Amino acid sequence: MCVCILLSCTFCQKRKNMGKALWSFLVFTCLLIPLAVADWNILKLQTQDGLKISLKNYCESWRMNVELHNIRDFQVVPEECIEYIGKYVKSTQYKVDSQRATEECLVYLSTSCNLKKDGLDAWIFDIDDTLLSTVPYYKNNLYGGKKLNVTSLEEWMSKGNAPALDHSLKLYNELKSRGVQIILVTSRKEHLRSATIDNLVKVGYYGWTKIVFRDPADELVSVQKYKSDVRRQITNNGYRIWGIVGDQYSSIEGIPSPRRAFKLPNPIYYVA
Amino acid sequence: MCVCILLSCTFCQKRKNMGKALWSFLVFTCLLIPLAVADWNILKLQTQDGLKISLKNYCESWRMNVELHNIRDFQVVPEECIEYIGKYVKSTQYKVDSQRATEECLVYLSTSCNLKKDGLDAWIFDIDDTLLSTVPYYKNNLYGGKKLNVTSLEEWMSKGNAPALDHSLKLYNELKSRGVQIILVTSRKEHLRSATIDNLVKVGYYGWTKIVFRDPADELVSVQKYKSDVRRQITNNGYRIWGIVGDQYSSIEGIPSPRRAFKLPNPIYYVA
Repeated sequence: MCVCILLSCTFCQKRKNMGKALWSFLVFTCLLIPLAVADWNILKLQTQDGLKISLKNYCESWRMNVELHNIRDFQVVPEECIEYIGKYVKSTQYKVDSQRATEECLVYLSTSCNLKKDGLDAWIFDIDDTLLSTVPYYKNNLYGGKKLNVTSLEEWMSKGNAPALDHSLKLYNELKSRGVQIILVTSRKEHLRSATIDNLVKVGYYGWTKIVFRDPADELVSVQKYKSDVRRQITNNGYRIWGIVGDQYSSIEGIPSPRRAFKLPNPIYYVA
Repeated sequence: MCVCILLSCTFCQKRKNMGKALWSFLVFTCLLIPLAVADWNILKLQTQDGLKISLKNYCESWRMNVELHNIRDFQVVPEECIEYIGKYVKSTQYKVDSQRATEECLVYLSTSCNLKKDGLDAWIFDIDDTLLSTVPYYKNNLYGGKKLNVTSLEEWMSKGNAPALDHSLKLYNELKSRGVQIILVTSRKEHLRSATIDNLVKVGYYGWTKIVFRDPADELVSVQKYKSDVRRQITNNGYRIWGIVGDQYSSIEGIPSPRRAFKLPNPIYYVA
């Protein structure tokens, strides 16, 4: 494109009929454009194998490998990818990725679940970044690029202003309307019970069957173990857990396995 | 940018010193450019929730949800995403995503595996799209957009011309050099044994401990069950399976679970 402008300008100038000021302006613009786009999209890096890649390639592969559960236990988003990850969680793509996951829950429910409608058909939801978004909190904390400060996060949670994830709310209501018992299992601690319930109700979530918070004793074990143990209690109580939706592998892995698990994208933090 | 060209042209023309031919050429170019980019990147769609998205958003969310294992059992890549998926598997991004997965295997091996070096430390690899690439075959079959023709795929496999996935070869050699026993478990059938071994050796894979093909009896059960059964035999023989690399969830899920599983991206087909 720049070549195109410059050629046309050169053509005009050769015919000695273009003002010097305009010529300078166009040349300046052409020089400015490449600088303006010289961001993470085109900066070149080199992988260990000598493959030349852009910073965007690098950060995208980091994100993809977090979602594939190949990268685990990360404490922070790599510094060089903070901008990229922040852009993603603010993007339409994040919404569409999450929405597709919840749509697949409904496909599964309609095609593969023979609901008995005896009050024992159940579905488990995680809370943070599954029903409620913590992105507004992480927005002020470098989108996961800053090491987690639990006190500050819990202070934010206690205000009860987390917005709903719209597609999850839709799924939640659809499950409820089909008579599925909804069970919320969160790694939020007991002292956040009241604020969390207020927050959930305020944004449209109500009518659940059970909500389980982590009590101090549970904090001695991993979140995966705590959530698996809760699932065992639920199945021992006679419930059939048709599915789980969570944004962390620790919400959906472990024994007893759910019949199906649905993983929402979340590249900003990792809970083991 | 176009506005910029047109302004400069208008400026020239106002001064009545630009040829009509050049003016027409530039206007034509400017009209052509938007048409050239009016592809899946900007075409607008609407999701069930009324969210306006591009076809690129849609196809990317399809791909992401395949990798998250939220979308399962797909027979073909959706027709509207064939171009997008084809572009991905030919891209640097696909290479970088896969390479990052294999790099994470080495991180895990160095930080979390206490190898005993007694000849019983083992690692399992899938073959297709893990060690060898079938992308050249799928390139001629709409990148997964055409329903699988097993006869034609096996005919292609029998020629033994599948290229190596470079990052996997590097990992394979690294594991071998650390004394880890390499076990290949493939859903290729027994009649492809000879062609497969020739192909593997030709592109640099050799020195494995065991290679397991699917025999006709195994074809009655799912690939996941067949591969889990093989893992059970391997562990019964005293091996410690430190990790598995595969491009399908059926290669890495099921009991006995490996200590760690690494999933390579593969949006072109699904093996249950």
